[in-house]
Amino acid sequence: MIQRFRFGLPLPTDSVVQEIPVSAGPVPFLTAEEDGWAYRMAPDAIVYGLGEMPRGINKRGWHYVTNNTDEARHSEDKLSYYGAHNFLLIDGGVGRECFGVFIDFPGKVRYDIGYTEHDALRFATEEPDHELYIITGDDLNDISRQFRQLIGRSYIPPKWAFGLAQSRFGYKTAEDVREVARQYKENDLPLDMICMDIDYMQDYADFTVNKQRFPDLAALSAELKAQGIRLVPIIDAGVRIDPENPVCAEGLANGSFCTKADGTPFVAAVWPGKAYFADFLRPEVREWFGRQYKALTDCGIEGFWNDMNEPALFYSPERLKAFFESMDELSRKDNIVQDEFFGKVVGGALGLMNAPEDYASFYHDVNGQRVRHDRVHNLYGGNMTRAAGEAFARLRPGRRTLLYSRSSFIGSHRYGGIWLGDNASTWAQLLANIQMMPNVQLCGFLYTGADLCGFSYDTTPDLALRWLEFGLFTPLMRNHATDGSRMQEYYRFADMLPALRKMLRLRYALLPYLYSTFMKAALESTSYFRPLGFDFPADPDAREVQDQLLLGEGVMVAPVYTQNASGRHVYLPEAMKLYRIRSVDDYDTELLPAGHHYVRCALDEVLLFIRPGHAVPVARPASCTAQLDETSLTLWACPDENGSARCRMYTDDGETSDFAAPEHWKTVEA
Amino acid sequence: MIQRFRFGLPLPTDSVVQEIPVSAGPVPFLTAEEDGWAYRMAPDAIVYGLGEMPRGINKRGWHYVTNNTDEARHSEDKLSYYGAHNFLLIDGGVGRECFGVFIDFPGKVRYDIGYTEHDALRFATEEPDHELYIITGDDLNDISRQFRQLIGRSYIPPKWAFGLAQSRFGYKTAEDVREVARQYKENDLPLDMICMDIDYMQDYADFTVNKQRFPDLAALSAELKAQGIRLVPIIDAGVRIDPENPVCAEGLANGSFCTKADGTPFVAAVWPGKAYFADFLRPEVREWFGRQYKALTDCGIEGFWNDMNEPALFYSPERLKAFFESMDELSRKDNIVQDEFFGKVVGGALGLMNAPEDYASFYHDVNGQRVRHDRVHNLYGGNMTRAAGEAFARLRPGRRTLLYSRSSFIGSHRYGGIWLGDNASTWAQLLANIQMMPNVQLCGFLYTGADLCGFSYDTTPDLALRWLEFGLFTPLMRNHATDGSRMQEYYRFADMLPALRKMLRLRYALLPYLYSTFMKAALESTSYFRPLGFDFPADPDAREVQDQLLLGEGVMVAPVYTQNASGRHVYLPEAMKLYRIRSVDDYDTELLPAGHHYVRCALDEVLLFIRPGHAVPVARPASCTAQLDETSLTLWACPDENGSARCRMYTDDGETSDFAAPEHWKTVEA
Repeated sequence: MIQRFRFGLPLPTDSVVQEIPVSAGPVPFLTAEEDGWAYRMAPDAIVYGLGEMPRGINKRGWHYVTNNTDEARHSEDKLSYYGAHNFLLIDGGVGRECFGVFIDFPGKVRYDIGYTEHDALRFATEEPDHELYIITGDDLNDISRQFRQLIGRSYIPPKWAFGLAQSRFGYKTAEDVREVARQYKENDLPLDMICMDIDYMQDYADFTVNKQRFPDLAALSAELKAQGIRLVPIIDAGVRIDPENPVCAEGLANGSFCTKADGTPFVAAVWPGKAYFADFLRPEVREWFGRQYKALTDCGIEGFWNDMNEPALFYSPERLKAFFESMDELSRKDNIVQDEFFGKVVGGALGLMNAPEDYASFYHDVNGQRVRHDRVHNLYGGNMTRAAGEAFARLRPGRRTLLYSRSSFIGSHRYGGIWLGDNASTWAQLLANIQMMPNVQLCGFLYTGADLCGFSYDTTPDLALRWLEFGLFTPLMRNHATDGSRMQEYYRFADMLPALRKMLRLRYALLPYLYSTFMKAALESTSYFRPLGFDFPADPDAREVQDQLLLGEGVMVAPVYTQNASGRHVYLPEAMKLYRIRSVDDYDTELLPAGHHYVRCALDEVLLFIRPGHAVPVARPASCTAQLDETSLTLWACPDENGSARCRMYTDDGETSDFAAPEHWKTVEA
Repeated sequence: MIQRFRFGLPLPTDSVVQEIPVSAGPVPFLTAEEDGWAYRMAPDAIVYGLGEMPRGINKRGWHYVTNNTDEARHSEDKLSYYGAHNFLLIDGGVGRECFGVFIDFPGKVRYDIGYTEHDALRFATEEPDHELYIITGDDLNDISRQFRQLIGRSYIPPKWAFGLAQSRFGYKTAEDVREVARQYKENDLPLDMICMDIDYMQDYADFTVNKQRFPDLAALSAELKAQGIRLVPIIDAGVRIDPENPVCAEGLANGSFCTKADGTPFVAAVWPGKAYFADFLRPEVREWFGRQYKALTDCGIEGFWNDMNEPALFYSPERLKAFFESMDELSRKDNIVQDEFFGKVVGGALGLMNAPEDYASFYHDVNGQRVRHDRVHNLYGGNMTRAAGEAFARLRPGRRTLLYSRSSFIGSHRYGGIWLGDNASTWAQLLANIQMMPNVQLCGFLYTGADLCGFSYDTTPDLALRWLEFGLFTPLMRNHATDGSRMQEYYRFADMLPALRKMLRLRYALLPYLYSTFMKAALESTSYFRPLGFDFPADPDAREVQDQLLLGEGVMVAPVYTQNASGRHVYLPEAMKLYRIRSVDDYDTELLPAGHHYVRCALDEVLLFIRPGHAVPVARPASCTAQLDETSLTLWACPDENGSARCRMYTDDGETSDFAAPEHWKTVEA
């Protein structure tokens, strides 16, 4: 059951697709306090949700603010990342009721989940006007399904988007891109996508291509597509200020950009230096911006990533000027002490980026009402995704287009996926990837994954391999790195190459199971990844597990995420069959009883557990998704007590949007 | 056996106290390469050592540089922390030989331990002149003991230094300090020390006291000492430039400061703004600087911490001027693009701190030879510790003085302890604390511990408690936080107070075991904490454990370091007796067989494992070490197959330096 409560006159968010009548009665479970809502947590209560946020699967023990932020450093002390996912799924504790809370609000929401007091949960919206949805049901899986139905069907990418994507900030020429494709082929490593970061643009201007470095994008795209590889270019939120650029000129002429208090366009610097920012909250601006993607779809491009759309702001000219003036003033002093140095020099420079004052200095037009940006900040990136998604439906009708975004809002999950932002090449971030997946997917973002090997800093050969051993299970499987970091295409690690190759091939071999699981999750509002506590809510040990995930109906994964480990502890809430896999053709199996186990897992091995009664259809590996032959499948299986094991499979052309046909479904049995 | 090899004419470091003749023969184990030394690691080889460094107990899989750095952010991607501990203890793998390598060199040493290639270890000194010591022996414990004998007896603090220290950057007045003492007393929490951060000084000038805020330090010290509490003030490396200040004036007059190329004193800013830096590498400067501590010992002060002695440099006037000029130039441009913004504005401001150019711009006098600072950089902080330690032997003969430092070098472990620098209030840092302890102690720094609850950012009630549950085993047990972070004195957490009290009291009750273990380690060159692989080198599971530690002869600890966990997996290499402790009077026990176990451990519980044949003497808790009554001890024990269990205890007055008396030793039996 879903109850809807309304307080004041909230701004619209379009997060929800079901029309639920507003309840008059009291809000269950929560206590209204002067300044928000409170809930007393039992000792074993678990709080799931909040999507893309730091810390464990269980969000207890920290405070958070949904405030979409270009956060370059992912760590436990952060309060906000790139997405605003205001959904909590509260397991009250064994024998206590569970419920979901969706806070439908476009600005900041603050959460204190056992941070101030260990057993107190409090949350508050920045302004009093908001809507609350309280969802109750049979269990966590049921509440989760109801919530997903409330917010509408998750975005479905083309099937080739489940192949490997190789990306890097720093592929500067068509030849760089070709070299990646060549090396993947020469090293017999499968590949489906090469992502193009901002290097392909002319002066970092959206919808331009640098003609010196990429003389014929359409030809390059066709050449690679013939090898089964799609190009996936980036589009940034900020539009480079350049009166000669038609997008900029047109946007100015039709008043598409966000404005300052005086009505002139708001300006802030991002990659190209000074830029304007489209007012994605207006339908006609979304239509206008979306239309621009045609410049690239006309070159044969079938997939995009939207970036910098929190929006990230490097600086505003006004604040940069003030900083320079402050430096000028300091330069006249003889001795600069700590407060001045840390406050004005270091703090002043760092404080130029993503400054709250800048977010409070420009305006949107929301249904004719002028609304200051910070009040609707969290809607911005999601509406850029929506602009693109709506455009693709027009530009490529009936066909699926790949789209994933950095910033997001519940609602934009209907138009595109997300990647988990600018993470780092650390083992801690591998664990963060594992822990973020179920909460992000719980909030509707099914097509998601983290930058494998890590984005910032330098990866290591063993981290590259271990991270792939988890990444091969995530819907979006992309290896991406920042400029200046260690080169990390999978062919770079000579000492790990045989194992990396086997793991990449394993991904493709598992696609029948993974793609079926994804499509079931999208079409039936069920889960792809979920915590063990969802299926075993009365098992105290299962409830606590923060580093294993159930994957679809039949699988549990338990990745190794610590360096120099050749095994790990695994908790089995029921008997399962372990597949310890070196390659699709080389594995050993063992039926393990329920309970705690230490399971060996060498650096070149991955653990896959199959639940009783379930089977995993396994294809022959291929060099790309187009080459995948799913006609003859092997079944890996854990028979139930009657000796049977099955898998409900979904198969389609992977390109068109005819999801409803019943012939897509079949059940295979072992 | 210890072999010494000499290459060129290395600068002296005074790291070693034994005179080992120089070997002529080839260096065993290592291969000389063009640019350093190489060793091929077997798949199960383990590399211990490097002391204060990021990552696990096993240093494989990363690269490191010993280059003492004021590192404000502790994370996996870092290459250097505050100390230079150039000792590797290599376990070649099961059935292969083990050996130790000490690289005696005062500048940077670069290590690649399976970072570039998974099985290759390489290291190189910045200049070719260096000494190598290769140590072989019966096993890891034996090699470790030989190394400790080579570098000389570790510093021994007074016994009260094993009590709790409460610290915070931000106790601004004598009343702030009194309030801490009062709250600890009122809340019945034991306490032995209150540390005074830079707030107590006048304008952050060393050896001054702000008379407004601390009108009578001697009286305050006496008043607190009557309650069993010592004041422990900080001393920074940089001497505030102030011709009226006698320390500054005297240092200038006698030429005690490091100089620039032109012979004038080197200037850089730290907390007080511009400062000079004593040339601690000269014996007469150490003598002069050490003499200044008398200003505080005359006030009854018996303990100090030396800080900022890498030395940290906020900026040099020359580079700040250049930065201001660069900002002035940029301020004239219309559009500042990414390279300029990140390179010059943000990068320029951040790059002012601890700049390599500044470290290459001043000089020391080493035995009459003028040596540029960066060539001997790593000796600086350790020689500040030495200056203080040598002074205390003169100022307080025959008595122990507490001293711990941020920066260190092998050799300075003879003069003081270290704390593990400016960590953060994260669960990751609790694990880092656990993993850093054995490697730091392996390098001679026995008296050590991390800032409990974490220094930067905001702690949480559960982290405060879980961290104390490990911290109660570390020699230095200090709760310390930075200015502006959440208040974290243990009395601040109402919901955790009973458990925190019990854990603090447990520390005091365990002091007979912990202090005996410390004194054995110091006097017999054995270990306090050590990895399981030291005692069980043939057990593959024991070798891999990165989150449990052996503690002295009879104990193993297995801390819980993950949030929202009420238990953890523990590996027992042999049968042990588990004490699951809520308080010294409330615990349950269980004899656990060797193997992997999942062990419950609620938030208010700590796990202690006793090895067969060993006993842990337990005193009654007390409000401070002076109140500890060790005459009647309870014995916690795990009898061996003959039913016997014992502990070799060390007891002394805890104040004087008469360590050799045989009557300090006795054996208690269960």
